[in-house]
Amino acid sequence: MPYGYHGKILHVDLTTGKLEVEEPNETFYRKYMGGSAMGVYYLLKNTPPGADPLGPENTLSLMTGVVTGAPFSGQSRVTATAKSPVTDLVGDSQSGGFWPAELKGAGFDGIVIHGQAEKPVYLWLHDGEAELRDAAHLWGKFTADVEDAIRQELDDKRIRVLQCGPAGEQGVLFGALISDANRANGRTGMGAVMASKNLKAVAVRGRNRPKSANPDTVKAVAKWGADNFEDSDIYEMGLDGTAGIAFSQSEGGGLPTRNWSSGIFEGAEAISGQRMSKTILKERDTCFGCVVRCKRVVEVTEGPFLVDPRYGGPEYETIATMGSYCGVSDLAAVALANQLCNMYGMDTISCGATVAWAMDCFEQGLITTEQTDGIELRFGNAGALVQMVELIGKREGFGRVLGEGSARAAEKLGVGQDLVVAVKKHELPAHMPQVKRSLALIYAVNPFGADHQSHEHDPSYRWYPDRMAELDLMDPQPEDVLNAEKVRYALYNQYLYSCMDSVSVCQFVFGSAWQLYGPSHLVDAVRGVTGWNVSLWELLKVGERRLNLLRAFNAREGTGAEVDTVPPKLLVPLQGGASDGVAVTAEEVETAKALYYQMAGWDENGCPTRAKLEELALGWLADALAV
Amino acid sequence: MPYGYHGKILHVDLTTGKLEVEEPNETFYRKYMGGSAMGVYYLLKNTPPGADPLGPENTLSLMTGVVTGAPFSGQSRVTATAKSPVTDLVGDSQSGGFWPAELKGAGFDGIVIHGQAEKPVYLWLHDGEAELRDAAHLWGKFTADVEDAIRQELDDKRIRVLQCGPAGEQGVLFGALISDANRANGRTGMGAVMASKNLKAVAVRGRNRPKSANPDTVKAVAKWGADNFEDSDIYEMGLDGTAGIAFSQSEGGGLPTRNWSSGIFEGAEAISGQRMSKTILKERDTCFGCVVRCKRVVEVTEGPFLVDPRYGGPEYETIATMGSYCGVSDLAAVALANQLCNMYGMDTISCGATVAWAMDCFEQGLITTEQTDGIELRFGNAGALVQMVELIGKREGFGRVLGEGSARAAEKLGVGQDLVVAVKKHELPAHMPQVKRSLALIYAVNPFGADHQSHEHDPSYRWYPDRMAELDLMDPQPEDVLNAEKVRYALYNQYLYSCMDSVSVCQFVFGSAWQLYGPSHLVDAVRGVTGWNVSLWELLKVGERRLNLLRAFNAREGTGAEVDTVPPKLLVPLQGGASDGVAVTAEEVETAKALYYQMAGWDENGCPTRAKLEELALGWLADALAV
Repeated sequence: MPYGYHGKILHVDLTTGKLEVEEPNETFYRKYMGGSAMGVYYLLKNTPPGADPLGPENTLSLMTGVVTGAPFSGQSRVTATAKSPVTDLVGDSQSGGFWPAELKGAGFDGIVIHGQAEKPVYLWLHDGEAELRDAAHLWGKFTADVEDAIRQELDDKRIRVLQCGPAGEQGVLFGALISDANRANGRTGMGAVMASKNLKAVAVRGRNRPKSANPDTVKAVAKWGADNFEDSDIYEMGLDGTAGIAFSQSEGGGLPTRNWSSGIFEGAEAISGQRMSKTILKERDTCFGCVVRCKRVVEVTEGPFLVDPRYGGPEYETIATMGSYCGVSDLAAVALANQLCNMYGMDTISCGATVAWAMDCFEQGLITTEQTDGIELRFGNAGALVQMVELIGKREGFGRVLGEGSARAAEKLGVGQDLVVAVKKHELPAHMPQVKRSLALIYAVNPFGADHQSHEHDPSYRWYPDRMAELDLMDPQPEDVLNAEKVRYALYNQYLYSCMDSVSVCQFVFGSAWQLYGPSHLVDAVRGVTGWNVSLWELLKVGERRLNLLRAFNAREGTGAEVDTVPPKLLVPLQGGASDGVAVTAEEVETAKALYYQMAGWDENGCPTRAKLEELALGWLADALAV
Repeated sequence: MPYGYHGKILHVDLTTGKLEVEEPNETFYRKYMGGSAMGVYYLLKNTPPGADPLGPENTLSLMTGVVTGAPFSGQSRVTATAKSPVTDLVGDSQSGGFWPAELKGAGFDGIVIHGQAEKPVYLWLHDGEAELRDAAHLWGKFTADVEDAIRQELDDKRIRVLQCGPAGEQGVLFGALISDANRANGRTGMGAVMASKNLKAVAVRGRNRPKSANPDTVKAVAKWGADNFEDSDIYEMGLDGTAGIAFSQSEGGGLPTRNWSSGIFEGAEAISGQRMSKTILKERDTCFGCVVRCKRVVEVTEGPFLVDPRYGGPEYETIATMGSYCGVSDLAAVALANQLCNMYGMDTISCGATVAWAMDCFEQGLITTEQTDGIELRFGNAGALVQMVELIGKREGFGRVLGEGSARAAEKLGVGQDLVVAVKKHELPAHMPQVKRSLALIYAVNPFGADHQSHEHDPSYRWYPDRMAELDLMDPQPEDVLNAEKVRYALYNQYLYSCMDSVSVCQFVFGSAWQLYGPSHLVDAVRGVTGWNVSLWELLKVGERRLNLLRAFNAREGTGAEVDTVPPKLLVPLQGGASDGVAVTAEEVETAKALYYQMAGWDENGCPTRAKLEELALGWLADALAV
């Protein structure tokens, strides 16, 4: 296996301290490709049903994919997979940056972390070598400080560090994994899982870049990207970052505002990516080998909210959850909240959305300053936002409650259950099903809770007919319908995005719509690196396989259709702007869900059937599930 | 729609004499591609359930595909679709030659024939013009004579003629369509349907070759084919024709012999393609623009069986059905039987297999010379074979009985029902499920009866891993198992072959295994001609769509799982050679069938569900079926 991947998976047993290298065969790589599909494979193989997400039986995988580190944009990605402490179901989260390509350079495609260490350790991988080292001195430290300390003690400034933060250590359920102090595998609490294992960090360094089987094909992919970049829609995202869409989202009535009561935010321009570019942006950052440079580095040196550029800058999701969700239009405050999340290691979406939920409760008098440590938790109160985020990071005071996420907080406090905007206890990201109707379906059915990166959003169906046709989608539907055609649109796109999370490529660079590269480029990229004559059929089947693996995990936990729901807030008409009066209906979701299950080859409870698993060459899983 | 296809479908209403041109939009072409998918689309739209296959309500389509006439091998193909008088279910049959490319050159992608003419007519298409002409003088004539007559009266020697023959006119149910007097849309009785409409022939002529959208891509496909042809497995088929496999089939115990009692034939070498090349082969013929030249032209000028080269030469299927099925090892007799089928317009498979069935009955004393007009219908009696084939063509004497096919003949005579080797009354072609186990499944479930061109046969799974992997098939299985992996192998290959019958390409030139081109070349070919950025996903979905359309037709006729069976003969152990003692079991077929239905997204009766039809963008069909 000379190409594209080293073929080495490192198994780390923290309980025994044993390190073992597995070298799976080529068929295994071609079936799973890496990333999320491989991660959930190891989770299913190693973690028994009913395991405590924060106990030693949980299995945490950090997986790159077959193209990681290759010389084209969008390939430096890593997926973290484990049972989630947020959802108590399968957990799954992606991130970019430099760590993924560096892991590959260090000689490993991925790491499977088993057990639990007695005391804090960190993992040091370099040039094919692996070592567990003491991390007692790093425990409780902010992410940038941990990174500095590791680089110093190993005497290499180019070491890349992926770590949990103090929040995860303290048991904040939505604790994230942070690399380079400014990238997050944010969702589903993967940082909390890593912390629970007493594993502080994974430091990597290596120069062993994978070779491509067909360098000319890879070069052609890179060249096409370079040639077409400036004319592509992604170019603009590079200029103003992902937050560049905040204003237009609001204009279209699709920017979640004040805990999803409205789709329009009067402060949208003030927190927009365009405004950021003109004000606090210090520089544009990138992931390994990418032309897009969508990452922000922001700095604020005066005023009440000082922001350190070391911690990067806010993405659109953060701008929304810390901004419009909370009614906060102070960009510096939002940037500081983002910094705090990166320092403490927290998911900005769950964190911001949970604060927004608490603000909604506060505004409605369901909670008071008695509970909030005296903080006036009102919509628009920027100072309160920042204070509360820090309390959550420290797991102190009311932050202790909110660190469980909005669903558990509502349960604990006994208030505001109908104000929780989450699926499977996983807070909704900042794209609104009210104006992009297929999101209602995908938020409901996605195995690891509401997610905005699991398919292509509705407007693309009309705007990018040529790329959609490659997925056999040729009957564009309007944004506000959730009919049968939209269900197949969602499903086929889900297969593609599921595949991209396994091949491990960025969904801004590769996709089925406005992205730099379309589905056929993904085929070319995988072909070029691996030398396999892969087809889009095969890649979409990888995506479908991964989706079924995720669903199978949840089925094994005894859950089914009953957890595939939308929060009641979505059924309440929105107020103001382009989406005034618009609501999702429970009926349309249930109808679409039933059809979606059938199209996916699942039973009426949403569980994969034996036939579907056999069709995906997952007979072993059908046996394991006893379906 | 400037590229690859003219976008013109000619509707001919024979009842009224009205000719109309339909120009479907681009989406329609991209969803159906042509060939079989388009043919069954028009059948479902135009023919009501319960229609008489030989009545005016039947709709006969002759469809080329989007790549027909392009400058690479394997593209000159036409599918005939109608309700079949053989199966009383959907009928479907492909052929190559020059007629398909010429039809395209005449300005039409396909023809949909409605109604029934009062008296014999033929259709004359040239340079975008269409005309119905009197055919009274052509009725009852042999195919070559009809061709000569039409060329003469229209004064153009380069006219291509596709026609029914005297057999179809007489009501032989397995009447074929013949073009160039030596190519057949042989199966499922499409010639009988055309004759029943009083349409004698479709004569075409035109120089309007379609342009390719991306000529460089098309050239690259052609060049790759030319460069790799001599090193490919198809090269040998070019040398000795399809009959080149006859001897090795027998060696492997897979040459159906004496009505499927054995898989080994002592006369295999005598009727082999290699022997043909050394003896009666006059020249090698080709289809339009193809490098392979697998077609045979044979001539016999002395002895009891004189053969006219005008009628081409026998394919492997004919060699087997007229040869080993009947125990006949006289190559000249087999070649003459082939000629008679081409003269009279009959399917060589159904014809030969029906004679073999009758011989089996005769040998067992179930029928005697009293019924057979005095003919000693014994296995190995070459003269009897030739006599009987001619009687069937004339529909005279015992030929009148056998012209109904083996299943109806057994019913009529009340004997030999368990000796009938047919599915859905459609006689089995010469590939044995006993030694290639997935054929048992596909023979059983294929909508238009037993067919050998509906998927790739079992040995390829082990021998061509690289191409199979493009279909996501990566766990090769032995030939003698019909397990879950083999079921998905059959299904995915069926999607590909179903697509090829819609794009309209030859299954010797394109395929997933030993063919010149693999799946990715098919993608390139369609891209080059049409300019659409098609993917293999999309093409396989076209294949799946066509398969579901075919199944839906049968479901609309009220049939389901009960017609998806294997004949009892397959359950009887074979005698002699490599397959001595081998039999298919009813249990393995039923198990595989149930799994196959589920994988295909059909109900337990084998009928497409609404969800599956919706998934394939066939909501209109779900509505029409009221599922």
